Amino acid sequence: MNTFGDKFKLSIFGESHGEGIGVVMDGVPPGIALSEADFEADLARRRSGAKGTTPRKESDKPRILSGVFNGFTTGAPLAVTFTNDNTRSADYSNLVTHPRPSHADWVASKKYKGFQDYRGGGHFSGRLTLTLVTAGVVAKKILGGIQITSKITTLGGVTDEGRFDEVVQRAVKELDSIGGIIECTATGVPVGLGDPFFGSIESVMSHLLFSIPAIKGVEFGNGFAAAALKGSENNDPIISADGTTATNNSGGINGGITNGNPIVVRVAVKPTASIAKEQMSLNTETGQVEPMSVHGRHDACIALRAPVVVEAAVAIALAQF
Amino acid sequence: MNTFGDKFKLSIFGESHGEGIGVVMDGVPPGIALSEADFEADLARRRSGAKGTTPRKESDKPRILSGVFNGFTTGAPLAVTFTNDNTRSADYSNLVTHPRPSHADWVASKKYKGFQDYRGGGHFSGRLTLTLVTAGVVAKKILGGIQITSKITTLGGVTDEGRFDEVVQRAVKELDSIGGIIECTATGVPVGLGDPFFGSIESVMSHLLFSIPAIKGVEFGNGFAAAALKGSENNDPIISADGTTATNNSGGINGGITNGNPIVVRVAVKPTASIAKEQMSLNTETGQVEPMSVHGRHDACIALRAPVVVEAAVAIALAQF
Amino acid sequence: MNTFGDKFKLSIFGESHGEGIGVVMDGVPPGIALSEADFEADLARRRSGAKGTTPRKESDKPRILSGVFNGFTTGAPLAVTFTNDNTRSADYSNLVTHPRPSHADWVASKKYKGFQDYRGGGHFSGRLTLTLVTAGVVAKKILGGIQITSKITTLGGVTDEGRFDEVVQRAVKELDSIGGIIECTATGVPVGLGDPFFGSIESVMSHLLFSIPAIKGVEFGNGFAAAALKGSENNDPIISADGTTATNNSGGINGGITNGNPIVVRVAVKPTASIAKEQMSLNTETGQVEPMSVHGRHDACIALRAPVVVEAAVAIALAQF
Amino acid sequence: MNTFGDKFKLSIFGESHGEGIGVVMDGVPPGIALSEADFEADLARRRSGAKGTTPRKESDKPRILSGVFNGFTTGAPLAVTFTNDNTRSADYSNLVTHPRPSHADWVASKKYKGFQDYRGGGHFSGRLTLTLVTAGVVAKKILGGIQITSKITTLGGVTDEGRFDEVVQRAVKELDSIGGIIECTATGVPVGLGDPFFGSIESVMSHLLFSIPAIKGVEFGNGFAAAALKGSENNDPIISADGTTATNNSGGINGGITNGNPIVVRVAVKPTASIAKEQMSLNTETGQVEPMSVHGRHDACIALRAPVVVEAAVAIALAQF
Repeated sequence: MNTFGDKFKLSIFGESHGEGIGVVMDGVPPGIALSEADFEADLARRRSGAKGTTPRKESDKPRILSGVFNGFTTGAPLAVTFTNDNTRSADYSNLVTHPRPSHADWVASKKYKGFQDYRGGGHFSGRLTLTLVTAGVVAKKILGGIQITSKITTLGGVTDEGRFDEVVQRAVKELDSIGGIIECTATGVPVGLGDPFFGSIESVMSHLLFSIPAIKGVEFGNGFAAAALKGSENNDPIISADGTTATNNSGGINGGITNGNPIVVRVAVKPTASIAKEQMSLNTETGQVEPMSVHGRHDACIALRAPVVVEAAVAIALAQF
Repeated sequence: MNTFGDKFKLSIFGESHGEGIGVVMDGVPPGIALSEADFEADLARRRSGAKGTTPRKESDKPRILSGVFNGFTTGAPLAVTFTNDNTRSADYSNLVTHPRPSHADWVASKKYKGFQDYRGGGHFSGRLTLTLVTAGVVAKKILGGIQITSKITTLGGVTDEGRFDEVVQRAVKELDSIGGIIECTATGVPVGLGDPFFGSIESVMSHLLFSIPAIKGVEFGNGFAAAALKGSENNDPIISADGTTATNNSGGINGGITNGNPIVVRVAVKPTASIAKEQMSLNTETGQVEPMSVHGRHDACIALRAPVVVEAAVAIALAQF
Repeated sequence: MNTFGDKFKLSIFGESHGEGIGVVMDGVPPGIALSEADFEADLARRRSGAKGTTPRKESDKPRILSGVFNGFTTGAPLAVTFTNDNTRSADYSNLVTHPRPSHADWVASKKYKGFQDYRGGGHFSGRLTLTLVTAGVVAKKILGGIQITSKITTLGGVTDEGRFDEVVQRAVKELDSIGGIIECTATGVPVGLGDPFFGSIESVMSHLLFSIPAIKGVEFGNGFAAAALKGSENNDPIISADGTTATNNSGGINGGITNGNPIVVRVAVKPTASIAKEQMSLNTETGQVEPMSVHGRHDACIALRAPVVVEAAVAIALAQF
Repeated sequence: MNTFGDKFKLSIFGESHGEGIGVVMDGVPPGIALSEADFEADLARRRSGAKGTTPRKESDKPRILSGVFNGFTTGAPLAVTFTNDNTRSADYSNLVTHPRPSHADWVASKKYKGFQDYRGGGHFSGRLTLTLVTAGVVAKKILGGIQITSKITTLGGVTDEGRFDEVVQRAVKELDSIGGIIECTATGVPVGLGDPFFGSIESVMSHLLFSIPAIKGVEFGNGFAAAALKGSENNDPIISADGTTATNNSGGINGGITNGNPIVVRVAVKPTASIAKEQMSLNTETGQVEPMSVHGRHDACIALRAPVVVEAAVAIALAQF
């Protein structure tokens, strides 16, 4: 489903090469100053342009259709749409019968019985993350004092930020792609957000993070590393009446509930499935496994554009409480 | 919130030392053979007893209150309850003012304003996973041909299964606790379960998995390791008309949708927060950070009991589609 | 589905003659004084006993399984169960093949493929309103200053309360049943509850009211009578800064939102479908339309027991905002 | 909230005089033939033009932004938007301080703290029913063999259709407004749609019907009239193995579930609150109750345009099952 949330509810729509894409946000409190210009900073962070990102350039100009009046949110649903300007649909037509490995091409054909819009990945396109970033801008405004930042900690297996450019360049040259790990931190989080079990911060946040195409892992605080520690090493001693802990191995969450320390979450971004390098895949017309190389315009490293998307997911999650 | 699901809806309740705990399941199809005895195998896998698990013994006898008639599910809500027999509430009373590090004690006091049932962790207790396992048994029956299995792949940082007993024994001896990593696999999964974005298999499954206390990381297929690979290494070539891929680095999911290959998911279980070993924490009565050691009965390694809980979460997730 | 609500979420279960019935309430704030005795007053109002109500007597003793500690709600899910003591299942076995007119017998057989618990109406029984009344007691406590009352305004077509007993007695004597109209009023309602469109007070409240078996009509304020009035007659002039209106033809709701005046809602209760008087219905075994008369124990006028159920639905609806 | 539904999910947005209004539909099956022209017939039925309807003329040209490819639905969210062309916002500015009786003006000011878009009723405008009609067109296509029709049975208290024009003309002349009653019938409905209690057809359908501005009453089958009948008069004898009943006093629904007979539902439409005739209301600036007459363009009888909106609500409700 393409709807998420309770207190701050999103409904997203659109395809990579369709008429337009957008998001409807319900539950936005009245009285928040908002204009189309407010989206630009985060949209720019998501936009392509750097080495390793797709040569497709989109203006990404948001249009507020409803929910803002005289410069402030009204409390009514906030709809923001975008047009798709820079589309080259001819690039994709062969993928219906010769589906890309590890892409949604094949499952989409099966699930939607051939009626799916296959151009540019259609509704499965990473272009839809534009709607998440848009909602993230609004969520951040709703959250007020909470600060959300993110950074790439690993790229193509390299942790030295000084070498990131190098590994990206190599992937581009090899007609291949690379993945990365992004860490996101939220500070200024009040104590008590979240609920036990199905309403845990980890549950709601991971739900949103795994909605981002290409995310294959999510961990909080020490995450997978905690599994190798002892309780005496991993536990965070409480050292102050406001809940401050000496360490933050829990990533700011206990029992599914925020404890006032920074929320720390990391996500694994897999290497982009679409690569120009030759790879094998079944051709459903010939019935043979045949070599293919993906033409069209792609990101050699989608992780470069993902930090702001991850922030958006974190903000949207926190805006539910 | 303590309610989850759409097609197969759960509502769980109970506290560690309260009158009873249970689960109401809505959306169970009529005509499934079900008796109280059917729960025993999975409940036994969750039950304590082995070295490293709590000395608290519970009979865990399920009582079906509704939804079954003449040995078959009726299509009406299925309620299953359990009583708490073996409770020693005196063990926990001091934790209200001297909260355990990395446990829910402190956040619960804040969120519920002191009204929470603090005995044995109250509603935050791992005992509530009994309700997940119960629902998992029903979910597995609903899923029919899908087989779900799980295993511990790492314990206390050790990957050699032959040494698991050794690391657990050491933790017990040191009055400490250890964590572990559990891998769960679902085979026989039809193509096309799941939806793009908020309805992705990863989103729904991680939502449930992170509802399990002590889970701090979730990854699908190659997961975090994928972030270090190239697309040409991580992509799974489709080699058969039924969607079979040469490798399964995607863990059976593309674009949020099952591709017919086995679903593979791994979770990180942190070391139990409650340890007998002395550790520091704020005493809210004295205002001082003071040493504490947790009495009561605890699991030195909760991961030992978690595989069946993880299976339950996976089954409940798949039963939504 | 048997789950309702957002902020105050209910999950109900049980059958007329099964092991037990109950309700799980999620979203109950911590710190509300609550004991099993608090349910008695409203449960007594629903209980049978008067002329025209079923001779089946149930003790309706609530058991709080979770969510209350030391006399106060904890903020965790509140589960309340009841046992079914006074069951005579033999009365109902023939209704499977010879379904009662206007009862759920026939549709249940079709929908649940014969697996439904048919004893006493099974899950469709009016006995399930016990769970609504139980939740209503809690909802009323959550609502605090809002007072909710109800009364029967019409019984068997008679509006003179002095003749109610007479029309009931006649129906009993004739082995027939009668319906009625119940009006419910909520005072002390704050301005601003509800939302436009799908979250309108009328939408949410009617959703719950029509969940009560036998309710076939719901109207707010002037309701159907408004359709015959002019705007100048039906409009309510605002006469005070607190929103007080000179008349209350709107029933306290404008644009789906409470305006601070009393909420007034009326429901139509149809005559009980189960009557001892002979009537015709298809016998699915013989394939013939044959006379039947319903044995077992029934209410000649279920409307007599319904006012407290209507109040409960109104309270549960208001507790969502 | 402005989102509704489970299987067929709507999210609506827009204001009377804003940039645009629209609806996002999620859960539309792939493979349904759909073009912008398909909306015209139902949109035309809702459009103004007849005597007694507003002189505001809108082209109501739908624009499909997503979810349709090569003339068929794709299975991805279907977004349809409209622009507001014919707006005269100056007409409404005074209503903020001098709110119309029985309109949302006053509650909106309170709930949204003055930030609401008050032009033309803003988000509360009947213009938003355009989105329901749009979704209704799609719902009808999803439902396939189910036929949904509606008619006005009473206008201004008159049941003789031959006099409808006369009562409308008189209301227009008197600068007043009138209400009406609309009956909607769905035939070809399969047995077994709906669920007991909160998922009853009556619950879900009334939820949607009361979302339509100006609806103040909803009844199924005999509705309020059933309250005056005896069980022997109101019960519907089953006379055929397909569930056909001799009468249809139940309106096609038993136990919340469709029984295969036509669904019959009636709604009461109150007279439009906005009338040109002088009426009294509090002027919040002067603090005095003062005469006002509403300028701007209004419908003297909104019921004339409502039948297709009612059909849409009925269709959307049935599309949930």
